[in-house]
Amino acid sequence: MHTADGVVSALRARGELWDVAPGVVGFRGGALTLLRRLEREIAQLAQREAPEEWAAPPALPMRTLERAEYFSSFPFWLTAAYHLPDDELALERIATDVEPALAAQGAGRRTDVALPPALCYHVFERFAGHHLTTQTVTLTGTCWRHEGARLSALERQWAFTMREIVCVGTAGDVEDFRQRGMRLAGALASRLDLDAGFLVATDPFFAPTARGKAIVQRVKALKHELALPIGNERSTAAASFNNHERFFGEAFGITLATGEPASSACVAFGLERWLLAFLVAHGVDSHAWPSLDATFAEAES
Amino acid sequence: MHTADGVVSALRARGELWDVAPGVVGFRGGALTLLRRLEREIAQLAQREAPEEWAAPPALPMRTLERAEYFSSFPFWLTAAYHLPDDELALERIATDVEPALAAQGAGRRTDVALPPALCYHVFERFAGHHLTTQTVTLTGTCWRHEGARLSALERQWAFTMREIVCVGTAGDVEDFRQRGMRLAGALASRLDLDAGFLVATDPFFAPTARGKAIVQRVKALKHELALPIGNERSTAAASFNNHERFFGEAFGITLATGEPASSACVAFGLERWLLAFLVAHGVDSHAWPSLDATFAEAES
Repeated sequence: MHTADGVVSALRARGELWDVAPGVVGFRGGALTLLRRLEREIAQLAQREAPEEWAAPPALPMRTLERAEYFSSFPFWLTAAYHLPDDELALERIATDVEPALAAQGAGRRTDVALPPALCYHVFERFAGHHLTTQTVTLTGTCWRHEGARLSALERQWAFTMREIVCVGTAGDVEDFRQRGMRLAGALASRLDLDAGFLVATDPFFAPTARGKAIVQRVKALKHELALPIGNERSTAAASFNNHERFFGEAFGITLATGEPASSACVAFGLERWLLAFLVAHGVDSHAWPSLDATFAEAES
Repeated sequence: MHTADGVVSALRARGELWDVAPGVVGFRGGALTLLRRLEREIAQLAQREAPEEWAAPPALPMRTLERAEYFSSFPFWLTAAYHLPDDELALERIATDVEPALAAQGAGRRTDVALPPALCYHVFERFAGHHLTTQTVTLTGTCWRHEGARLSALERQWAFTMREIVCVGTAGDVEDFRQRGMRLAGALASRLDLDAGFLVATDPFFAPTARGKAIVQRVKALKHELALPIGNERSTAAASFNNHERFFGEAFGITLATGEPASSACVAFGLERWLLAFLVAHGVDSHAWPSLDATFAEAES
């Protein structure tokens, strides 16, 4: 068993991982090959559950987050886009400044276009106001969560790759979906020879008004996380399995044929955390890895 | 021949494309299947040229853009990230505001973390200060260019998917690479039954100090674009082929074995524009499309 720090240092030394900002990294070489294989494996798992894949837009309107009560729940994570003013004089001042990057930062216009903290919001937004029978959708993309001083490469990235499966429908269907997601994720961890554990978890709701939700989560066991070891007796939550009950159905006016608000659940994988846990367990040298070809072929059969 | 507006309206009506902000869209259904096939085809083309693929980080430090003289060249496009303050009281004010999205926008801290306007900057940043022989790398990812009122779905997106191939090396190698890129892109357009034309082009340099670069580009034919028709006698630049001469080699201190600054060139594809041109040429109904299976199989042989 290696350590998270050891793995990240080794990948940096080999040039297979590099940092462009706290928690924002690039990949090449063996680390990238492995990341892509894990992505494919998890995508196959998702496609078994979700007949339909969507391409998530790379941004999300803040009004969607507002509708989801995001700002009382997880405001600390929020990352959004700013751009420069569409004004010749202002641009000229930036272009001719001796420190143009600093000048650009000062002149930037903040927009109401957020970078997605999770992908399921796209699904609720698209289904808003719809009557539906149970639907399952999968999406992948970059998610952004600013975690200040806690940011670190692979383990807790500002920008990370999420694969999410979202089920909207009857209470029974969405809980069955969530339970199947837990079994599939546990089986994947076994195939990768990772020592997974499931924990009942809660989201880090911010506002006192939202904290009641965490109590309900815990009491009803609505959120589980799959914990993978990353050395030094620590683990990382590499996947989460969330039953939202009717919260998003009510917030977005999504209803069942009966007219009742739909329930929803999502299963979300953090790809860089799977990569980290795999490398902590098996080392950064591919010759010491369990045979991935056999592993992945078996998964496909 | 259909029109760009007609195609976008038809995809929106079918729910295969939706807008979350000006020039920021999601895909599903047939449009997504086609986009993925075009992505694969263009990735295969890139892999023939570039033995190595990198995963582009989803952000870029502004100091890299500064080094590339970006702020006198294309400041108008710049999009960057802001996040909320790491301050309980400020977050509480946002969480309890009656218009939290607006409050969040006002309180946001602008960072020096840009969303990439192109992917080649990642390559120059990584090669900065290196001695090298000719290297070719390919990357894909979301690029951001804010174009104000000109933004439109597919044709001119704020956030779009770029596939880029970057060659850094001797002047002869990088120009040969660029010429091969033009031939490969032209052959791809033919296989897709698209009526491509190549144009000598210039970049829209902003500052008077930078405009000399556009004159050099035109006189020396350092930039070509592949124009694909999108109806109403209009076309879109679906790929560009750029010889930067020693500009980035000098700016980033990248040198050849001789000690001279390296030259560079890049070939960049805008995926959503290929999708648009394909749908304008062949319509949104897949039964009227040229046989993609044959097309793609032929490309692989």
